[in-house]
Amino acid sequence: MTGYEIFDLGNLWLQSGATLRGAKLAYKTYGSLNRAGNNAIVFPTFFGGQHYQNEAVIGPDHALDPGRYFIIVPNMMGNGLSSSPSNTPMPYDRARFPHVSLYDNVASQRRLVTEMFGIERIALVVGWSMGAQQAFQWGSLYPGMVERIAPICGSARTSRHNFVFLEGVKAALTADDAWDNGWYEKPPYKGLRAMGRVYAGWAVSQAFYRGEVYLGLGYSSLEDYLVAFWEGRRLGADANDLLAMIWTWQHADISANEESNGDLPRALGAITSRAIVMPGRTDLYFPPEDNEAEVGMMPNAELRPIESIWGHLAGGPGYNPADTAFVDAALRELLES
Amino acid sequence: MTGYEIFDLGNLWLQSGATLRGAKLAYKTYGSLNRAGNNAIVFPTFFGGQHYQNEAVIGPDHALDPGRYFIIVPNMMGNGLSSSPSNTPMPYDRARFPHVSLYDNVASQRRLVTEMFGIERIALVVGWSMGAQQAFQWGSLYPGMVERIAPICGSARTSRHNFVFLEGVKAALTADDAWDNGWYEKPPYKGLRAMGRVYAGWAVSQAFYRGEVYLGLGYSSLEDYLVAFWEGRRLGADANDLLAMIWTWQHADISANEESNGDLPRALGAITSRAIVMPGRTDLYFPPEDNEAEVGMMPNAELRPIESIWGHLAGGPGYNPADTAFVDAALRELLES
Repeated sequence: MTGYEIFDLGNLWLQSGATLRGAKLAYKTYGSLNRAGNNAIVFPTFFGGQHYQNEAVIGPDHALDPGRYFIIVPNMMGNGLSSSPSNTPMPYDRARFPHVSLYDNVASQRRLVTEMFGIERIALVVGWSMGAQQAFQWGSLYPGMVERIAPICGSARTSRHNFVFLEGVKAALTADDAWDNGWYEKPPYKGLRAMGRVYAGWAVSQAFYRGEVYLGLGYSSLEDYLVAFWEGRRLGADANDLLAMIWTWQHADISANEESNGDLPRALGAITSRAIVMPGRTDLYFPPEDNEAEVGMMPNAELRPIESIWGHLAGGPGYNPADTAFVDAALRELLES
Repeated sequence: MTGYEIFDLGNLWLQSGATLRGAKLAYKTYGSLNRAGNNAIVFPTFFGGQHYQNEAVIGPDHALDPGRYFIIVPNMMGNGLSSSPSNTPMPYDRARFPHVSLYDNVASQRRLVTEMFGIERIALVVGWSMGAQQAFQWGSLYPGMVERIAPICGSARTSRHNFVFLEGVKAALTADDAWDNGWYEKPPYKGLRAMGRVYAGWAVSQAFYRGEVYLGLGYSSLEDYLVAFWEGRRLGADANDLLAMIWTWQHADISANEESNGDLPRALGAITSRAIVMPGRTDLYFPPEDNEAEVGMMPNAELRPIESIWGHLAGGPGYNPADTAFVDAALRELLES
């Protein structure tokens, strides 16, 4: 990963009631803010991702072109760069790290955007997966500030089925005695590997495996794909960090705040910015049906499914060139509207 | 569970090369064989199931009516009643229990049917999930003997995606140190619970959770459903037994035998009996697409999806009354043809 900046949030009061003292928001920017101050794009990270993993779709060949836009990538809390169980000092470290909500993340990001950069209007908030959930939350909380949103493979509220999928992921990770209720000194590698293996069936589709797509991606067999991609993907992460982000994901609900008071239709109705919502057609845990219902409650939104067998990964930054091109085209259209 | 019988298979040579000495096939029968000897139905068990769990759809109100048919329910190897890791004496006990294939199961069941009962023709082989796989295998191996088959929510060959789903299930179960590579003295309860939780997202559909169907089934909350149904479902089972059946499932392929020599189209083409193949429309690991391809290679088969939000459980014996009625109607039509 390349360099990044830290925005000091000070004493951050969380929805859960805890105060995260000296809270940090790690971020990186690409391009420059123009004089009119109207070319800013916010592009939050996804579950387990860090800012540099968004870079695959930032560049002159993409809609997110730093030659035209000032792109801010804020790292989600729990991702190991922003405040996380793995980098927070005692007493809120490790297993004692407090619950951080979707709202907490987005409210903190707004402080970065306004206090650090003095930005009053944002041209676009775009994100994949949990990044999409942050885009929905931005649009709902700050409709006067956000001109456009593009949530990709994510929902405004985590569905019950998605919650249950994550229960399985958690159960696999925490079945490892080495996890020790979060007080491990050595990483619970067996649990991290198990989590990767559970994830493998969920994140891409039945058709992806039917077509042995992984053989074209540099993996020599199905088992090689499971070990090198899915287990490998988690082994470098901190277990408590992953669990912190899973909590945020499981409880993600753009209406869970004072503004909307748990009223999801009201929270969705507040998203007046133009939106193109892009679920993956074969996504197993953020299925298009959930977005379809949400788009129906948004005043200025279009549902545009990514017709792909890549499941949830269809929207992953740079994962599949055809899907990336589809998303880029939608973002260009949105930005030019 | 009620009483059952044991058929002694003697020294069973398995495809894996091992000999299971004193192998046992546990079974139960319902009704009587008629004089013509043409009213026999074979109804194998599913993953983790035992014969009594098939009884929910055996009765005068069902297609499988013991007043008309002689119904034989053979227990699958590994299910704790037929030869299994948990009941096999040393030296092939526990973690050393040999791999038992789909073919081994069905060839053993054929011996029961012919040697014990002298049956030459079978009116129907029907089964759910791994029971469906056994029905496909019966039809392919013994087309002159089997008049009809009805595979419900199962495929003739386990797909790669289904294999990967099971890798996640295995990983969760075996992440528990208490599993001890199969040499546990006390059950690895944490792993069994984790397995149950992983399973919960897979076995029913997104729409099932969206509609909170479990609240109508005697569960007081989502968490109650996860604990009481999904964890509870596995806690009474033996971990090695579950892993033995998972091996059978992961490697299930009706062409993996000398008759078909790995040629799946040939194995499917050999199923000349009339077949109604019933996938669940929302089944996540035995999706309708897999059956659709298989039915296209079967000379006398019809694809008839169960239009249900119950996912894989749509075909479970007696699980959902509407789906049970759908299956019963198909079985009646098939039996009367």
